[in-house]
Amino acid sequence: MTHVPSGAPVTVIGLGPMGRALAGAFLEAGHPTTVWNRSPGKAAALVEQGAVLAPTVAEAIAASPLVVVCVIDYAAVRTVLGPQTTALEGRTLVNLTADSPANARETAAWAARHGFGYLDGAIMTPTVTIGGPDAVVLYSGPESVHRAHRATLAALGGTGTYLGADPGRAAAHDVALLDILWTAMSGIAHAFALAEAENIKAKDLEPFAQGIVGLLPRSLTDHAERTDAGNHVSDVFTLASAAAGIEHVVDATEHHGIDAGILKAARATARRAIEAGYGDDAFSRMTEVLGRPAA
Amino acid sequence: MTHVPSGAPVTVIGLGPMGRALAGAFLEAGHPTTVWNRSPGKAAALVEQGAVLAPTVAEAIAASPLVVVCVIDYAAVRTVLGPQTTALEGRTLVNLTADSPANARETAAWAARHGFGYLDGAIMTPTVTIGGPDAVVLYSGPESVHRAHRATLAALGGTGTYLGADPGRAAAHDVALLDILWTAMSGIAHAFALAEAENIKAKDLEPFAQGIVGLLPRSLTDHAERTDAGNHVSDVFTLASAAAGIEHVVDATEHHGIDAGILKAARATARRAIEAGYGDDAFSRMTEVLGRPAA
Ligand SMILES: NC(=O)c1ccc[n+]([C@@H]2O[C@H](COP(=O)([O-])OP(=O)(O)OC[C@H]3O[C@@H](n4cnc5c(N)ncnc54)[C@H](OP(=O)(O)O)[C@@H]3O)[C@@H](O)[C@H]2O)c1
Ligand SMILES: NC(=O)c1ccc[n+]([C@@H]2O[C@H](COP(=O)([O-])OP(=O)(O)OC[C@H]3O[C@@H](n4cnc5c(N)ncnc54)[C@H](OP(=O)(O)O)[C@@H]3O)[C@@H](O)[C@H]2O)c1
Repeated sequence: MTHVPSGAPVTVIGLGPMGRALAGAFLEAGHPTTVWNRSPGKAAALVEQGAVLAPTVAEAIAASPLVVVCVIDYAAVRTVLGPQTTALEGRTLVNLTADSPANARETAAWAARHGFGYLDGAIMTPTVTIGGPDAVVLYSGPESVHRAHRATLAALGGTGTYLGADPGRAAAHDVALLDILWTAMSGIAHAFALAEAENIKAKDLEPFAQGIVGLLPRSLTDHAERTDAGNHVSDVFTLASAAAGIEHVVDATEHHGIDAGILKAARATARRAIEAGYGDDAFSRMTEVLGRPAA
Repeated sequence: MTHVPSGAPVTVIGLGPMGRALAGAFLEAGHPTTVWNRSPGKAAALVEQGAVLAPTVAEAIAASPLVVVCVIDYAAVRTVLGPQTTALEGRTLVNLTADSPANARETAAWAARHGFGYLDGAIMTPTVTIGGPDAVVLYSGPESVHRAHRATLAALGGTGTYLGADPGRAAAHDVALLDILWTAMSGIAHAFALAEAENIKAKDLEPFAQGIVGLLPRSLTDHAERTDAGNHVSDVFTLASAAAGIEHVVDATEHHGIDAGILKAARATARRAIEAGYGDDAFSRMTEVLGRPAA
């Protein structure tokens, strides 16, 4: 179905799963949307929805005052947009690609040097949420740039949270949040491998695993409160007990010849904490120990 | 407050936070409860509730046909109960200490050699849940032993799930579930350390972190289904994109001189998967790659 575009024009560069979701949401909200991707063949469904596929990245940029880029990392951003600084002049680039705060600040400086507006963003929810109420997108960079484009960016859904002028702020949140996501997902991946070695089917472990995941919201709150307060006294669970638990998982993992690298790294930190005399403390002490340079 | 005990007598050995919760639940349900702990001073509140503090572990065992042990690990179980095989003869030991499946099976064999009943258990929820509807306790070992004591064990609350005759079965679930718990908690601990280095207070990261944790139930289901089906085709997210995300977290972590061991281990597995040609697959492919012996 083709919508009659009425909003401000937008260009979306990068048509991986997320770029396609972004372009789809702009189209859905009535923005004339131009798209471009390094390799061909990803724009078909979007074109059917009314998007214009630009033949070159320069033409894609020329089509809109607001250019959204969403590719795999900032190296890819620089590969695609590095030669396009003249085309970008006077426009605004919103970079929804994930990367480190240092790279976000460097990219903002590059944009400033070349005279175009720059807003850094981080998308914290999966593609299915984009355009709906559950989308979470964090932004940082000049407030004037955010204010100028927030109405258009609202098409992406949910609450676009503006985190301030430091262009690295969104990426700083992003890396800390991806730290939780990818560490937890790696634990889930590993747990199913260990379960399989013990002849437990994934579907049989799953309900119990949901129970464990269900404990995390409360633990997270507790951990955050303890961290800010510097209070790690606990009479319900100790770091020493956690370390013993980690030990059993490592033992069982190695018993089956499975890589135990992730938990061995966690164990190393727990051991450092216990050696420092924190065995009777809450697990939240780990944050403080991790934050210190290793001896 | 002292309850009038009426149920079957129970002994609880080990009065860490969890042992105290177990003894409290037995007392609450009206079971005459005898307790013992290696070091003194942990029984005061329980004695006030009506528990009998035995002066020696042998006397604690002699007080009840059902002995529940909950200490830090099986090495501690063997230290405390190893010299007590004669006292245990003809009784039933329910071991609610966490450890590996191999140690559970070995402990069951030790019990069989010495002529006492043995049930292995794993507690999957925190102390606060014990005695209430949210407690999750897994059991495995001879069905007759479980049947004989399930009414008493019901005092611990929730659903006591019996997983079959293999005494290692509860521990096998336990290690896989603790794998998720301690990996995720380590990620949370690490994320707050990284956030702090970026001048983000734990309480400011927390709401976004809850959003990330809120993505896990659905991802877990998806991962489990893909694992059992061996289907890792995805058009919404790729392992290569996850690996790029992990890379940013490692970069940001090392930028601040913080230990990046956990995510570097996760990265190593992701790289192995990508080198094997799985970069376009879903993250669930990690389970299969982890399950394979490293080249
Ligand atoms: N998918 C999600 O659920 C999700 C959620 C939150 C955030 N994000 C973030 O959104 C961004 C995009 O993710 P994605 O899921 O769409 O997939 P992705 O695999 O991270 O990125 C794919 C896009 O990057 C392009 N690309 C890759 N390498 C390139 C290079 N060397 N030069 C130029 N372009 C290159 C691809 O072009 P080709 O098509 O030519 O390969 C494609 O347009 C990432 O930063 C990701 O972390 C994604
Ligand atoms: N707390 C929880 O939320 C929770 C949740 C699920 C499962 N669990 C499991 O429940 C078990 C007990 O946990 P916990 O929280 O009560 O605390 P814990 O710190 O794991 O265990 C403390 C108990 O172990 C005893 N102990 C430690 N080392 C010993 C040794 N070498 N010899 C003899 N006894 C020794 C302690 O005696 P002393 O007092 O003399 O040191 C105390 O009775 C663990 O396996 C744990 O994984 C706990």
